[in-house]
Amino acid sequence: MTAPAKRPGRRPGSADTRGEILDAARAEFASRGFEKATMRGIARAAGVDSALVHHYFGSKDQVFLAAMDFPIDPATVLEVAAGDPSAVGERVARFVVTLWETPQARERLLAVVRTVASNEEIAALVRGFARPRLVVPLAARVGGPDAETRVEMALAQIIGLAMARYVIRVEPIASLGAEELVGLLAPALQRLLTS
Amino acid sequence: MTAPAKRPGRRPGSADTRGEILDAARAEFASRGFEKATMRGIARAAGVDSALVHHYFGSKDQVFLAAMDFPIDPATVLEVAAGDPSAVGERVARFVVTLWETPQARERLLAVVRTVASNEEIAALVRGFARPRLVVPLAARVGGPDAETRVEMALAQIIGLAMARYVIRVEPIASLGAEELVGLLAPALQRLLTS
Repeated sequence: MTAPAKRPGRRPGSADTRGEILDAARAEFASRGFEKATMRGIARAAGVDSALVHHYFGSKDQVFLAAMDFPIDPATVLEVAAGDPSAVGERVARFVVTLWETPQARERLLAVVRTVASNEEIAALVRGFARPRLVVPLAARVGGPDAETRVEMALAQIIGLAMARYVIRVEPIASLGAEELVGLLAPALQRLLTS
Repeated sequence: MTAPAKRPGRRPGSADTRGEILDAARAEFASRGFEKATMRGIARAAGVDSALVHHYFGSKDQVFLAAMDFPIDPATVLEVAAGDPSAVGERVARFVVTLWETPQARERLLAVVRTVASNEEIAALVRGFARPRLVVPLAARVGGPDAETRVEMALAQIIGLAMARYVIRVEPIASLGAEELVGLLAPALQRLLTS
């Protein structure tokens, strides 16, 4: 979370405009939270016109994802979860494992986990984004009693497995092949998401 | 994770100086993480001279190992897992939730999670400890195919749930009562540990 870089008079389109918008966005999200932050406020903090922020990022969600360097767009997760409920665990597991096994995406995911674990401000930001954008709509899709709780248990299983495999790197989990990992995660997610 | 308790020439400090240093260290590690905590900071929090901390433990790593010794005693986990296999999920869930809901134990556990996430050396320490002392004997007790993998999935579910509830603090998981939490975790662990 860097300081609010207010730089009026910058020319829209300088090589670093995008980076300056992201700096401003991080400060804005940090001080107001995801829900209350606005595209206009971010633009003002960056000293650019709102239209330019829309031009670069399209939506507040996309600014947030870029500012956090978050490699998963919840909208994609929701698409993956749609479709035949009897195979939702398999689809989500395959999506997650494919991301993990892509080194660049994995590094970015682990960076988020590390930052959240050590920084309450970032934890609050992630909380303020994850609930309305991921947990609530995914629970609506999944349905059934206690859907939000079960969705969070599934996310917890995913986060915990990532920590065990890529952070602690304990065997045998650390050395499983991608397909074995999908085979391990899929039934656990299936039970949580369709109980 | 035992610490070489070197206690020559007692004296500088009360009978409980070592315990007070460990209490201070736990608070310091919990709030700052392993990397940023300092021997000086721990000494200051304990109200003793840095030299005394060095005298008792030798290094920050040794203080950390001693401070981590307690919160999860693998022998206790193995005892909890023993007995009727049809209720192992319930017993382990209740044990884990009881620990979490004890503020001091929770603080110590979260310090471990934070430190493991940000420090490869500590991750290696935890990995080198967790496998022979926890995963392997627990898998032997649990039995069945892929027991080690399933034990690690169960540990991953536990770690992930702790992160969701106490670090990210996302609702509704963050506000569940202890009994609800046991009711949520028990069946997930039961399936993983007895598949």
